[in-house]
Amino acid sequence: MASSAGPEIERLIGLLAKLPGMGPRSARRAALALLKKRDQLLTPLAEAMAETAAKVRACSVCGAPDTRDPCSICSDPERDPALLCVVEEAGALWAMERMGAFRGRYHVLGGLLSALDGIGPEALHLSALAGRARNSEVREVILALPATVEGQTTAHYIAERLQGVTVTSLARGVPVGGELDWLDDGTIAQALRARRPA
Amino acid sequence: MASSAGPEIERLIGLLAKLPGMGPRSARRAALALLKKRDQLLTPLAEAMAETAAKVRACSVCGAPDTRDPCSICSDPERDPALLCVVEEAGALWAMERMGAFRGRYHVLGGLLSALDGIGPEALHLSALAGRARNSEVREVILALPATVEGQTTAHYIAERLQGVTVTSLARGVPVGGELDWLDDGTIAQALRARRPA
Repeated sequence: MASSAGPEIERLIGLLAKLPGMGPRSARRAALALLKKRDQLLTPLAEAMAETAAKVRACSVCGAPDTRDPCSICSDPERDPALLCVVEEAGALWAMERMGAFRGRYHVLGGLLSALDGIGPEALHLSALAGRARNSEVREVILALPATVEGQTTAHYIAERLQGVTVTSLARGVPVGGELDWLDDGTIAQALRARRPA
Repeated sequence: MASSAGPEIERLIGLLAKLPGMGPRSARRAALALLKKRDQLLTPLAEAMAETAAKVRACSVCGAPDTRDPCSICSDPERDPALLCVVEEAGALWAMERMGAFRGRYHVLGGLLSALDGIGPEALHLSALAGRARNSEVREVILALPATVEGQTTAHYIAERLQGVTVTSLARGVPVGGELDWLDDGTIAQALRARRPA
């Protein structure tokens, strides 16, 4: 029993506990905070979620969530159609946009290949990527995928599948502010191999 | 800029970041999870929040959030009206109910006295507590308040204010499974003073 306050709060706590990083205890804390801030937090959040559920859809071109279709980036004539950045999820797209130095367009795979989780090429937006990449406008496909086994498996698969197209990957190396002492050996080894004139 | 996906998702992320334990990064992760699980998570959570906002109110007797007024505990004839357990927030009430061995009723203060935060007696549900405690049915007021400065200040204030009524506090001591090595000196000292025949 999560509470004695009836099924509504039980259900709210159960759903909050499904959010990433939340467990039963933090979900109860969140529910309490929502109850205490009914007008400032609970009602606005309920409305924001309902609005998001009603209005936000995956862009039919790149797969990014947006209220417009094509999304605001795909329909922006200022964005360079010659550069296509491939990301796992919208979170990586948002990180690239916060960084602010990329003026091309995106392709959201919706996941990564994973033999363990049984995620094959057909589960990802890979055919659409191949179609876009072979478009005469596209000059370079930039893979911005995680430096994990699944990320690298997916990167290799895409590079194989897009033969004839220029496919690049984000550089690996020491992150800004990174202390060598705290970095794993693999990163240091890659940074050494890719060393550049100082 | 939190995302490039328009004001709806920006707003959702901003509100999620206000939940306890959440920050901008975890709010973005939560928003992504909600977008990925639109039908299983986003829509049900929006509905659960709207329903909670619409139906759940503070019980006019004890202050606990519930869809009924008086709440399900205050209106339960099986609960002993002679025992009144005072808690800071509904979270502590839920913890007592999960424990399951308390068959009395509750009083939710809605906070603790804090000179630092300028929270005085009038900001808490203390007058209502005094009224209930002087009710001829009530035999004992059990303080289940946190073992913090604010909790103990509030406990002393209540004990002073309810002179003539039996006021007790939850015992302090070594928690079940607690290693002495990991306990603070204050807890060990209190556990020693309150030692009992083994």
